[in-house]
Amino acid sequence: MHFRLLFFCAAVLAACGLFYGCSQAIAQSGSALPVTVSFGTDISDDATWEVLSAFNTERKEDIREVKFEKGTYHFYPEKGREMFCYISNHKDVRIRTAFPLTGMHDLVIDGQGSTFIFHGRMIPFVIEESKNITLKNLAIDWADSFHSEGLIVANNPEEGTFDLKISEEYPYEIRNGQLIFVKPYYEHPLGQTILYDPKTNGIAYRTEEYTPLTSVARTTYKNFDKIKYKYPVDPRDAVNTIVGKERRLRAEQLEPGLVRIYNHTKKLPEAGMILTAKGHQWENRIAPAVRIVHSENFVGENVDIHHAGGMGLIAENTTDLTLRNFNITPSQGRMVSTTADATHFVGCRGKISITDCTFNNQLDDAANIHGTYQIVQDVLGANKLGVRMGHHQQQGFQIGYPGERIGVVDLEESFFSFAELTIKSVEKINSRYHVITFNEAIPEGVNAGQLIENTDAYPELLVQNCNISRNRARGLLLSTPRKIVVDNNFFGTEMEAILVPVESGHWYEAGSVTDLTITNNTFQDCNISGYDRGVIRFIPDDENENIAFSGIDISKNQFNQFDNLLLEINNVDDLRFTGNTITDSRTYSRLFPENPAVKVRASSNIIFEDNSYGGSATEMLDEGAKESGLKFR
Amino acid sequence: MHFRLLFFCAAVLAACGLFYGCSQAIAQSGSALPVTVSFGTDISDDATWEVLSAFNTERKEDIREVKFEKGTYHFYPEKGREMFCYISNHKDVRIRTAFPLTGMHDLVIDGQGSTFIFHGRMIPFVIEESKNITLKNLAIDWADSFHSEGLIVANNPEEGTFDLKISEEYPYEIRNGQLIFVKPYYEHPLGQTILYDPKTNGIAYRTEEYTPLTSVARTTYKNFDKIKYKYPVDPRDAVNTIVGKERRLRAEQLEPGLVRIYNHTKKLPEAGMILTAKGHQWENRIAPAVRIVHSENFVGENVDIHHAGGMGLIAENTTDLTLRNFNITPSQGRMVSTTADATHFVGCRGKISITDCTFNNQLDDAANIHGTYQIVQDVLGANKLGVRMGHHQQQGFQIGYPGERIGVVDLEESFFSFAELTIKSVEKINSRYHVITFNEAIPEGVNAGQLIENTDAYPELLVQNCNISRNRARGLLLSTPRKIVVDNNFFGTEMEAILVPVESGHWYEAGSVTDLTITNNTFQDCNISGYDRGVIRFIPDDENENIAFSGIDISKNQFNQFDNLLLEINNVDDLRFTGNTITDSRTYSRLFPENPAVKVRASSNIIFEDNSYGGSATEMLDEGAKESGLKFR
Repeated sequence: MHFRLLFFCAAVLAACGLFYGCSQAIAQSGSALPVTVSFGTDISDDATWEVLSAFNTERKEDIREVKFEKGTYHFYPEKGREMFCYISNHKDVRIRTAFPLTGMHDLVIDGQGSTFIFHGRMIPFVIEESKNITLKNLAIDWADSFHSEGLIVANNPEEGTFDLKISEEYPYEIRNGQLIFVKPYYEHPLGQTILYDPKTNGIAYRTEEYTPLTSVARTTYKNFDKIKYKYPVDPRDAVNTIVGKERRLRAEQLEPGLVRIYNHTKKLPEAGMILTAKGHQWENRIAPAVRIVHSENFVGENVDIHHAGGMGLIAENTTDLTLRNFNITPSQGRMVSTTADATHFVGCRGKISITDCTFNNQLDDAANIHGTYQIVQDVLGANKLGVRMGHHQQQGFQIGYPGERIGVVDLEESFFSFAELTIKSVEKINSRYHVITFNEAIPEGVNAGQLIENTDAYPELLVQNCNISRNRARGLLLSTPRKIVVDNNFFGTEMEAILVPVESGHWYEAGSVTDLTITNNTFQDCNISGYDRGVIRFIPDDENENIAFSGIDISKNQFNQFDNLLLEINNVDDLRFTGNTITDSRTYSRLFPENPAVKVRASSNIIFEDNSYGGSATEMLDEGAKESGLKFR
Repeated sequence: MHFRLLFFCAAVLAACGLFYGCSQAIAQSGSALPVTVSFGTDISDDATWEVLSAFNTERKEDIREVKFEKGTYHFYPEKGREMFCYISNHKDVRIRTAFPLTGMHDLVIDGQGSTFIFHGRMIPFVIEESKNITLKNLAIDWADSFHSEGLIVANNPEEGTFDLKISEEYPYEIRNGQLIFVKPYYEHPLGQTILYDPKTNGIAYRTEEYTPLTSVARTTYKNFDKIKYKYPVDPRDAVNTIVGKERRLRAEQLEPGLVRIYNHTKKLPEAGMILTAKGHQWENRIAPAVRIVHSENFVGENVDIHHAGGMGLIAENTTDLTLRNFNITPSQGRMVSTTADATHFVGCRGKISITDCTFNNQLDDAANIHGTYQIVQDVLGANKLGVRMGHHQQQGFQIGYPGERIGVVDLEESFFSFAELTIKSVEKINSRYHVITFNEAIPEGVNAGQLIENTDAYPELLVQNCNISRNRARGLLLSTPRKIVVDNNFFGTEMEAILVPVESGHWYEAGSVTDLTITNNTFQDCNISGYDRGVIRFIPDDENENIAFSGIDISKNQFNQFDNLLLEINNVDDLRFTGNTITDSRTYSRLFPENPAVKVRASSNIIFEDNSYGGSATEMLDEGAKESGLKFR
C-alpha cells in the first residue's frame, strides 16, 4: 500500500503536464492538489526503508503530507539514511534516520495517533534548511533506552557499599570492575547518575547528598608536562576530559541481576530509591528525537516523546517554532523520559511558542533558550575575525548569516556589546574555528579573548499552560532580550524553576533578559534535590556590579514551597514582584531554614507589592537588601 | 612571501582578461603559463593556515605547482580543514588537513627537500576526485607518534610479570590498572603489541611466542540473550567488538618511567627487547599520511613517510598510481614507522607502479592490492540489489561506477563469478548499505548471501627494486587478476613475503591472481616471527578443490632462509618455479625442521625446474605433492 496516493497524484499531475507547475502553484497559493504519501501498518515491522524511499525521490519537495495509518511502526538503523551531524549541546554524531527532511517545505507528517519505535543510534526527525514543517499526532519512543535504571535494595555503611537490583530490561556486564549496561547498538557505564523516588515518580528529595555517584578518582601518572600544545586546549573536549582520571567506583556481581557498588564517597543511596544512570558526560547525548537547524516555521502538535538519547527537540538557527501539546513523558515503566533537555533552542529567531505541553522526567532542563558566544581568536585583517567555539559541544555552530548583526562583548566591562558589525560571510574552516568577514572594518578595541554574539538571533518566547516537573535540573533557562511571557504553568523541578543566567564561562550561552513576564504560575517544591538556590534566579557567571537583566515582571504566581528561598536577584534593574501568593507546602523538611525568601545583589529599581506571604522564612530579605532600603510587601 | 607567484600570475592573467580562458587552455593544451604558489620558511611554525588558504580560493583549480622553500614545516589541526572521511581499512574519522585536494588536477606539490611535521589527528594529504597529482621531494613525520615504545628491562617468571621502561617521549598514566599512553590530541592503551629487536631494528625473532600480549579476558555478565537484533550483526564493529571482554593485563608503576605488567599468559618478553604498542584494533588507524580516493594518475616521487597513525598511503577507486623512491622508514630513533600498511590499494584500476621504494618497520603489510566483495542482502527488484559491506572498515566504499562490470560470486561453487551485470547507478543509503541499479535484469540464481565484486576495478601491478623488511606482517598481498610483476626486490618480513589470498571470510578483499611473475628477488629470513607459513603462499579462505589462482611464474629468485618452508601452493593451476637458488641463512635456529620446502594442495600443472637447493629441508615436497607425481628439480 505504500506510496498509493503519491503515485496516484503524480500520475494525475503528470498526465496534465503540470506536475512541477502544480507544485509551484501549491507553494505560491497554498491551495492546489496536495501530494500525499500514505503508509499502512503492513510496513510496521521496519518502516525505515519505505519511509526513506519516499524522501528519496526527485519529487520529494512536492510532498505536502505523509500520513500513517494508526499503528505501531518500528524504525531500525540498518537501512536508514546516514548523516554526520554537528548538533549543539550534543556529541557530534554519525547517525541514521528515516526522515531526512532537508530542503523540504510545506510538509505535514501526520501519525494519526501512531507510535514510532526507534532502535539504536537514530535521530527520528532531522529537519535542515526546511520551511513550514509540521509533525503531529504521533508518539516517539525507543525499544531500548540510552539510560539504565536499577533499584537500590540495600546499603552497608560499614563497608561503604550499596546494592543495585537490575532487571532483565537492562542487560549489563562488569568489565575490570566497571558496571557497563549493554544494549543493542549501544552501551554505557554508570557515568552520570541521579536518584528517582518511585513513590513520586520524580527526582528524589535531597538526591544531591547521594548523587551523582562519586565516579572519578585521580590517576597514577607522570610527565604530563611533556605534553605541549601550541594552541589553547579545551580541558573538557573528548581527548582531554579523560586524562588524569580513573574510575573510583567498583562493581561486583553478587548474583545475576544484583550488583554491589564499592567506593562511593557521598551518602549511600537508600533502599527503595531508583538509581538512573546514563553514561559519561560528553558521550551520552547522541540521539535527540527531533533535530532542527536553519529552518523556518516548525510546528509540533500532539506529539509525545517518551525517550531520546539526548534532547527531545534541539533547534538551532531556526525562525518561529510552535509546540502545542508537545509532551516529554516516560513510558514502559521507566523513571526517565529523555536523557537530556526536553527542548533546547540555540540562536533561534522569530517567536518560540510552547503551549499546553508536559515536560516530565527528562534528565535536564525543560527548555533552554539562548544565543551563543564565540571567542575572538584572531583579527585576520581589516574586516575579518577568526573565532573559536567556546564549548566543544557548540562545534559546527554557525553564528549567523549575511546581513545579521554581531555584537562584540567585553564581559569585564559590560554584559552588553560595545561594538556592532554585520556579517558578510562565514567560512567554516573546521567545526571549532570559523572565519567571519564583515561588511565593516573591525573597530579599534576588538581583541583576541573578547566574545561575539549575534544580536539578531534571539527569539520572542511564550511558555503557557505547561507542566514542567519530575525532571532533573531546571525548568526554563531564559537568555533572550526579546519579549518573554511565562504564563500559567506548573513547575516542580529539581533545581531552579526559572534560571536567567549569563553563561559566559563554561557553556558560552549568550543572551541577556530585558523583557520578562512571569505570571499566574504555580511553583511546587522546586529545588527538591537540595541546592541552595532561588526558585527563580537571576545570575551571571561574572561577579561584578554591572546590570545584566532588566524589565522583569513577576506577578500573581503561587509559590508552594517546602523551603524558604524564592528569589535570587543579581545584576537586575527594574524588577516588579507583585501579587504573588507564597505558602509553605510542608511536603519535605526545610533544608536551609536560615535563608530569607529573597536575596538581592547588585540590583536597582526592585519593587515588591501586594504579595501574600504564608511561608516559614523568618526574614523576607537578606541583610544587603534590607540595608539598601528594600521592603517586601 | 606567501602566494607571491600566485598573485603575480593571477595579476598577469587577469590583466589580459584571460585568467579562466588561460586555465582552460592549460587544461586542454598542457602548455600555458603555470600558476605557482610558493611558501617560504617564514610560515614554518604552523603552515596550516597559509597552505589551506591557497586551496581555499575560487582559483584553486588553476594552481599547477605548490613549492616549499627547503625547511621543516609544522602543521597543526587547530586551523586545518575538517573532513569526515570513510577510509577503507581505517576507522572512519573526522580529521583535519592542510591539503584538501578535492577536484584538483595537474598539480605538483614539491617540498624541495622539506620535512612536514604533523601534530595530532591530521591527514597530511587528502586527494579526492582529482587527476594528475604529484607529490615530490618531501618527508612526512609526526611530532608525537600514534604508537608507543618501551624497553623490556626485566621479567619474573614466578610472578608472571615483566617490566617496561618508558622514556619521557611517551607520557603515560595508569587508569584502573590499565597503561594508557597520553599524547597531545590522542591517547591509546597497550592494545596491539609486537616486539622489536634493537640489534636488528626489525621485528624480533619468534615474537609470536611472546606477543601480541594476551590482553583480553572474558567478563562477568548476564542475560546477553536479551539483546536481540533484527538484522545481521558484525561482531567486529565498534559496538560489538568490546562486549563480553575485559582487559586481562594489569599495570603498576614501580617508579616514574618503570611499569610492571601482570597477567600476560604467553612467554614473558625478555630484557633487551622493545615492546611497541598501538592501542586497540579498529580504533588505532585514524591518520594515514596520504589518502586518495576516486582519482586518476597519482605520482609520489622522492617522498619519505616516517610515521602515520595508519597507512602510509591508502588509495581507493583510483586509476594509475606511480610510487618512485616513495619510502616508509622510521625516524627520531623510533622502531616503528607507520602503524599500519606502508601502502594499500582498494578497487584501483589502470596500473600501479611501485619502484625503488623502501618499506621498513611499518606495523602491517608493505603493499596490499585488492578489490572488494560486498554481500548481496536484498534483491530489491528486477534490476536492483541491496548490498552490505562485509567488513566494517569498508563502510562507505563504493564498489564501482556506471558502466563497470559487477560479477556475482558463489564461493561455495567457484572463486569466479557466475553472472555479470553492469552498473547503472549506486545509491549510498548509508555507509554499510548501498543500493545498486544495473543496466540488466538480475539473473536467476542471484540470492542473498552471495558476493559481488567489480571485475573492472583491478589494476596491473609492478613492484621493482624495492626493499621490504623489518615490518610486521606480510610484504605483498596480491589480489588482482591483471598482470603482476614482482622484480628485483629484497624481502625480509615478519610473515609471508608474498601472500596471494582470497580473503572472503573476514576482510572481504576480492581478487584472484591469474598472471603473476615473481623474479630476481631476494627473500631473506622471512616469517621471522614464528608462523608456520610459506615465504610465498597461495591460499583461499574457503577450503575446497576449486582453482583460485593461475598463471604463476616464480623464477631466478634467491631464497636465503633460516627455515625450511618456501612455498605453499593451494588451489593453483599453472605455476612454474624455475631457476631459483635456495640457501640456508643459518641466521636463526629452524622453527619447523619437519617441514618440506614446498607444500602443494588442490593444484594442477605445477612445474619445478632448474632450481638450486642448498637449504636444510630433508624433504623438498610434502607427501601429497609427491604422491601426485610432482618432482622438485
